Amino acid sequence: MKTRLTEALGITCPVIQAPMAFAAGGALASAVSNAGGLGMIGGAYGDPEWINRQFDIAAGARVGCGLITWKLAKQPQLLDRVLARDPAALFLSFGDPEPFAPAIRDAGVPLICQVQTLRDARQALDCGADIIVAQGADAGGHGEARGTFALVPEIADEIARRNNKALLCAAGGIADGRGLAAAMMLGADAAVIGTRFWASHEALVHPRILDRALAATGDDTIRTKVVDVVRGYDWPGRYNGRVLRNSFVQKWHGSEDALKLEVGIEAAKWAAAQEAGNLDVATAFAGEGIGLIDTVLPASDILAVVMDGAQRILAAAGQNQQEAP
Amino acid sequence: MKTRLTEALGITCPVIQAPMAFAAGGALASAVSNAGGLGMIGGAYGDPEWINRQFDIAAGARVGCGLITWKLAKQPQLLDRVLARDPAALFLSFGDPEPFAPAIRDAGVPLICQVQTLRDARQALDCGADIIVAQGADAGGHGEARGTFALVPEIADEIARRNNKALLCAAGGIADGRGLAAAMMLGADAAVIGTRFWASHEALVHPRILDRALAATGDDTIRTKVVDVVRGYDWPGRYNGRVLRNSFVQKWHGSEDALKLEVGIEAAKWAAAQEAGNLDVATAFAGEGIGLIDTVLPASDILAVVMDGAQRILAAAGQNQQEAP
Repeated sequence: MKTRLTEALGITCPVIQAPMAFAAGGALASAVSNAGGLGMIGGAYGDPEWINRQFDIAAGARVGCGLITWKLAKQPQLLDRVLARDPAALFLSFGDPEPFAPAIRDAGVPLICQVQTLRDARQALDCGADIIVAQGADAGGHGEARGTFALVPEIADEIARRNNKALLCAAGGIADGRGLAAAMMLGADAAVIGTRFWASHEALVHPRILDRALAATGDDTIRTKVVDVVRGYDWPGRYNGRVLRNSFVQKWHGSEDALKLEVGIEAAKWAAAQEAGNLDVATAFAGEGIGLIDTVLPASDILAVVMDGAQRILAAAGQNQQEAP
Repeated sequence: MKTRLTEALGITCPVIQAPMAFAAGGALASAVSNAGGLGMIGGAYGDPEWINRQFDIAAGARVGCGLITWKLAKQPQLLDRVLARDPAALFLSFGDPEPFAPAIRDAGVPLICQVQTLRDARQALDCGADIIVAQGADAGGHGEARGTFALVPEIADEIARRNNKALLCAAGGIADGRGLAAAMMLGADAAVIGTRFWASHEALVHPRILDRALAATGDDTIRTKVVDVVRGYDWPGRYNGRVLRNSFVQKWHGSEDALKLEVGIEAAKWAAAQEAGNLDVATAFAGEGIGLIDTVLPASDILAVVMDGAQRILAAAGQNQQEAP
């Protein structure tokens, strides 16, 4: 399944695994890359020792690394350390990529910018991004309000208007071959897939949390700031995160100011629940695609199932068109 | 472009025009039906005289009618009056369709239930809905929080699990052939298209409002309750509506309680602006697809462009698959 993106990155499947904070370590990233996609270490908040360890675990597989841009801005020296690991790509999300784009370009590393609005996409194109990821609110984890469905073609049009050669990925709600095929129809060159790989053997997720998550539907997810408040993470106001609803989220969503007042006690409870995999209180970042997932599989099997599904329905769609008068 | 839905409804294009309140009268509905789709009168809040007039304007074209379910529940006698006009389908949104399903079935009229969650879809299937419309938050006008992208395949799976013969439409963010093709990939039998038909010659929209709307991007839309507060409409809490951002919405969004205190003055201002087409204050319900729209066209041209686009990219996708090794 060749696309402009598979050609550009030298991979065989138009699928990039989302660099999910804490969940996407070297084992997942290397499994995805070895199966033909592009695996990503979730560098996220930028713990250099953790990132180094994950590159070691990936053991020479061609994997990329994701970083949270506003957090990178507070520790810019991290960028050189990550570039020194010769990542297959640098995947920046949530903030202005401009200060970091030149060093990434100079290192010859493809720059992937994940964006949530058309305005963000314009900024990323101005920075010379090689790949734009149009991430809809349907996605798990952090993001913003716009939906995947119209964001992708709108950014595709912007790229075309500029006669820019940036490639485009769709992210948010893609968990199977139908989603990959739909992303291509909307003008994407590839899909970024998170939640489906979160429910994999290789992801760093507590098994008790995964068990509960598999029973959830997309209705059971919600975008909220509660998790960042309890962790004391200083996210810019425009972003929130999609998680599975649980009693902790139900209690505090919409009452974030009250949570701040009790954050000492609540943070201890939350951390203990996280450790124990107690999903009444612990947080599972998951996208609306969780309702399409009912098994935990090896990452390579996930990629094979997604690819096979997409190829079958795309071929069938073409067949139907040819049979039409 | 035959699908199970075109066969079932005896139409030639797998496109249903959304029954947009106030904007979708008989002229738009008949133009869409006469061009091969299924046109819908936006019966909405249920003004029986207006609805009758629009059926008269449609002048014998096979058009359906949409009604807001929670509002119909307050004036159940309306249903018989609408059924007496022999609609091509009844399209119920926003509330429990169960009380109305038997009369619609007895009249031999196809029942279309628009839903916003998997839970809603289950309820609609329990009522014997003939067609489920999975409406994502990407849509203009009223709706809820789930995105189109994962909602459609999740409901497709639910229908398949039940071995139910209901047909499925995708709604929310579909404004061109890419969107229709993507909807089919996600498992839909057809698309429900609103905003693209709102920007048509036949829609009942103030030309000054249309002019401003064409310049908007998807970023310029927002889901809010402000419009219902200023109109004094008693919408159930779970729903809000996607509109174009303007200074009125910016002022009151998040301050709905304060708006209620000043609603007398503000309602008069809003109504005058609505009349004058002053989009600083007046409301334009529009989906994120507005960013894909830059012309006002006759509805028949819109349908032709959507169909042509979808057929071309579906055929090309199939071709690519066949060329693959």
